Amino acid sequence: MARAQEAGHDVVVTENREACGPFLVVCEHASNRFPAAFGTLGLSPQARSAHIAWDPGALGVARRLAGLLDAPLVAAGVSRLVYDLNRPPHSAGAMTARSEDYDIPGNLRLGADERLWRTEAIYLPFHAHLRAEIARRLAAGLPPVIVTVHSFTPVWFGTPRAVEFGVIHDADPALALAVVAEAKARTRLDCRLNEPYSAADEVTHTLRLQATPYGLANVMLEIRNDLIATPEAEAAMAATLAPVLEAALAAADAPQMKKASH
Amino acid sequence: MARAQEAGHDVVVTENREACGPFLVVCEHASNRFPAAFGTLGLSPQARSAHIAWDPGALGVARRLAGLLDAPLVAAGVSRLVYDLNRPPHSAGAMTARSEDYDIPGNLRLGADERLWRTEAIYLPFHAHLRAEIARRLAAGLPPVIVTVHSFTPVWFGTPRAVEFGVIHDADPALALAVVAEAKARTRLDCRLNEPYSAADEVTHTLRLQATPYGLANVMLEIRNDLIATPEAEAAMAATLAPVLEAALAAADAPQMKKASH
Repeated sequence: MARAQEAGHDVVVTENREACGPFLVVCEHASNRFPAAFGTLGLSPQARSAHIAWDPGALGVARRLAGLLDAPLVAAGVSRLVYDLNRPPHSAGAMTARSEDYDIPGNLRLGADERLWRTEAIYLPFHAHLRAEIARRLAAGLPPVIVTVHSFTPVWFGTPRAVEFGVIHDADPALALAVVAEAKARTRLDCRLNEPYSAADEVTHTLRLQATPYGLANVMLEIRNDLIATPEAEAAMAATLAPVLEAALAAADAPQMKKASH
Repeated sequence: MARAQEAGHDVVVTENREACGPFLVVCEHASNRFPAAFGTLGLSPQARSAHIAWDPGALGVARRLAGLLDAPLVAAGVSRLVYDLNRPPHSAGAMTARSEDYDIPGNLRLGADERLWRTEAIYLPFHAHLRAEIARRLAAGLPPVIVTVHSFTPVWFGTPRAVEFGVIHDADPALALAVVAEAKARTRLDCRLNEPYSAADEVTHTLRLQATPYGLANVMLEIRNDLIATPEAEAAMAATLAPVLEAALAAADAPQMKKASH
């Protein structure tokens, strides 16, 4: 546990904790920080700032969305190469040894002790903290709508991606379908359902872990990172997406809101 | 938080933590303890020892099952009338105001602060602790099979119940079906699927929260409490059920075990 504590409290960052809108925004790949306790995994500074280490622009959009929606924000403070918070501890992708065309030397041949250490130092505190924020609202009879914010690279293994705004669902597609409909109606974004990833790619762990057990409406957003490459672009994207989310929630009829009083 | 800490560390009890069999046993209604911080909810000593406060015999069976199966045991240390750990924080049943024909005076007109306090003092630590035990095994590539152990009263609102051993599933029925088949083949118990409760009664929260997100095989066991009314009877029931569970796991082909190496 001493080693686990070295990772510090910065594995999770909460902002707008007292916000009282219906949404709760999550950003699992917010950071490309490599805490000293874990080292740099043998990666160059260039690799540590590339999209393999984090979702560039996602935190900026998530933070601004949280502001516009009067929502709390729970964001990671550690690179997903140290631990990918959107993967369970038994997934190879939780501490991946390879991402796109990069090897991750520090993740090769990880022993059970190292996997356990990172799980206890990063995965468990992050998701316990997120659960506590959700439970606070449940106890008050205000089940939150869970929105996770991600970004993706415009070129993947040399192939350009046309999709600009991906909307991904897990078991309950209601809110995702409504977000796609509102994005098509209200924006010029090339918006697609379950692209560039889907639940079959194991990208919906946070939704499964945090939203589904409570019957909370939920959706995962994927924004192409060339569209959110500056603070101004992040703000513009958040200003585009906030009304889309609000309209989608109204259209989806927020089924979990009906349960709030039971 | 100071008040939350008064509840103490005894809200969750772990035994056999280093056990290495495939099962992990959970007993959410193990205790009829009313920690001083919460008071006695206006209940008489008789009410506090009745089945409304806990599942009599469940801990004894769970503890002996854990021993026979070489499994860790995670058990509650607080009465379910203070917080029912098998209910989410927004459920009326989490801090119920009425149970069978008992009123629970201390749970009438609970404010948001009191609900939040109990949620933070009992629900969150218990489930965070259980999650950590599961995650330890996931990180080691050994996903556990989750078995929750409960007991039910032989008479409910004046009507006797014939079922002796109820086997309840949530989304994934595979292990439950196998347990029923093995119980019918190997025991003389009146064994029934989804009796006296089922997921529709909101009794599978722990399975949904702890097993389903990880794809873990899982089952909820309900034992009629007149069959486990003495330590000897608890031991005999555990000795009957341990081979049923082991055979059922083999028969169900433990799908999650195949994922352990990915």
